[in-house]
Amino acid sequence: MARQERAIRTRESILEAMAGLFIEVGYEAATIAALVERTGLTRGALYFHFPTKEAMARGVLDGAVTREGILPQTYKLQEWVDLGLLLAHRMPQEPMLRAAVQLSVDPKARSMFGTRWPDWINLGEDLLVEAEQRGELLPHAVPAEIARLAVGAWTGVQLVTEARPQGPGLDEEIARLYQLILPNVASVGVLAKLDTSPHRAKRLLGPAS
Amino acid sequence: MARQERAIRTRESILEAMAGLFIEVGYEAATIAALVERTGLTRGALYFHFPTKEAMARGVLDGAVTREGILPQTYKLQEWVDLGLLLAHRMPQEPMLRAAVQLSVDPKARSMFGTRWPDWINLGEDLLVEAEQRGELLPHAVPAEIARLAVGAWTGVQLVTEARPQGPGLDEEIARLYQLILPNVASVGVLAKLDTSPHRAKRLLGPAS
Repeated sequence: MARQERAIRTRESILEAMAGLFIEVGYEAATIAALVERTGLTRGALYFHFPTKEAMARGVLDGAVTREGILPQTYKLQEWVDLGLLLAHRMPQEPMLRAAVQLSVDPKARSMFGTRWPDWINLGEDLLVEAEQRGELLPHAVPAEIARLAVGAWTGVQLVTEARPQGPGLDEEIARLYQLILPNVASVGVLAKLDTSPHRAKRLLGPAS
Repeated sequence: MARQERAIRTRESILEAMAGLFIEVGYEAATIAALVERTGLTRGALYFHFPTKEAMARGVLDGAVTREGILPQTYKLQEWVDLGLLLAHRMPQEPMLRAAVQLSVDPKARSMFGTRWPDWINLGEDLLVEAEQRGELLPHAVPAEIARLAVGAWTGVQLVTEARPQGPGLDEEIARLYQLILPNVASVGVLAKLDTSPHRAKRLLGPAS
């Protein structure tokens, strides 16, 4: 393995370990000492990649807004739904994504780094505006409002679902959320064509997921 | 003022001050030292009312699930909507309610105290089951699922709205959330009779609110 590739992997593994700490104990209580213990790396090695805990938090947040897995669809509204279904499928498996939510709801981390919610809202709004231009939305549906409410609703459903491990999985709950919202967003002809199955994300990501 | 009444007021003012700290710096960083500074009370006086920080967190959470302001309505579905509209109206003004959300999304506090979400879900589900029995719901609407999704969606919309102080107020956003959801929940005749105005909560609480 080339030296550069190894450095990138080490960097990723540090971020993942720190993401785990952010999730388990919160931003304030996540210390470099705990990270040393968890990774087995020296302080020197950690500081080589990230000079401060703040830099690690920024690293986690930088990877949090992603269109990965989104494929072009006949309807733009399907791409908007896919955005949420894919994230619901990935989040339980990816500590980095969960840590980004955790940092957004932590008062201290939020005051230092802000949140990624405005980026998610913009991404959703762009897709909904395209959907509107193609006539896929009901006449009264306002893209900016729906994008904003959907990011809020998605985030809260994730938090409540995560807090009830004995309940339904996130992919099922998020699929139900879209099924609840879409009849008041999609034009009648388009609604019948949308796929909101909780299994869709897995299919989109391919057999390796 | 009688001694007992004074004690109750002091207790309330301690909880409110601690709620403010939970919101601003999070559970971990909220210290008794900061509370002494903020309230002007001695440690002895604080400990007389609450032996530990944990007891204060429990005090905040105990007051977090409330039917205050809910009045009997022709439609049970209206009472369910009122629950959410009232909380949206009160939360920006009441640090204790915001602190309860903050404690629910804090990993350490959540592991110690759990959340109030199951109680809110049960309260909503009870109203929705009554609404269903009276024929107010669409045939495919499942009370347990809607209650669960609504608590999640409500919570997330609150968090995203609070993080964007330049955006619309919580009462407006929550009213929009119900307007988005209800056409897929309420039977057609009932839907037209529901009041989802962002000003409704203020009217329900009366002129003093």
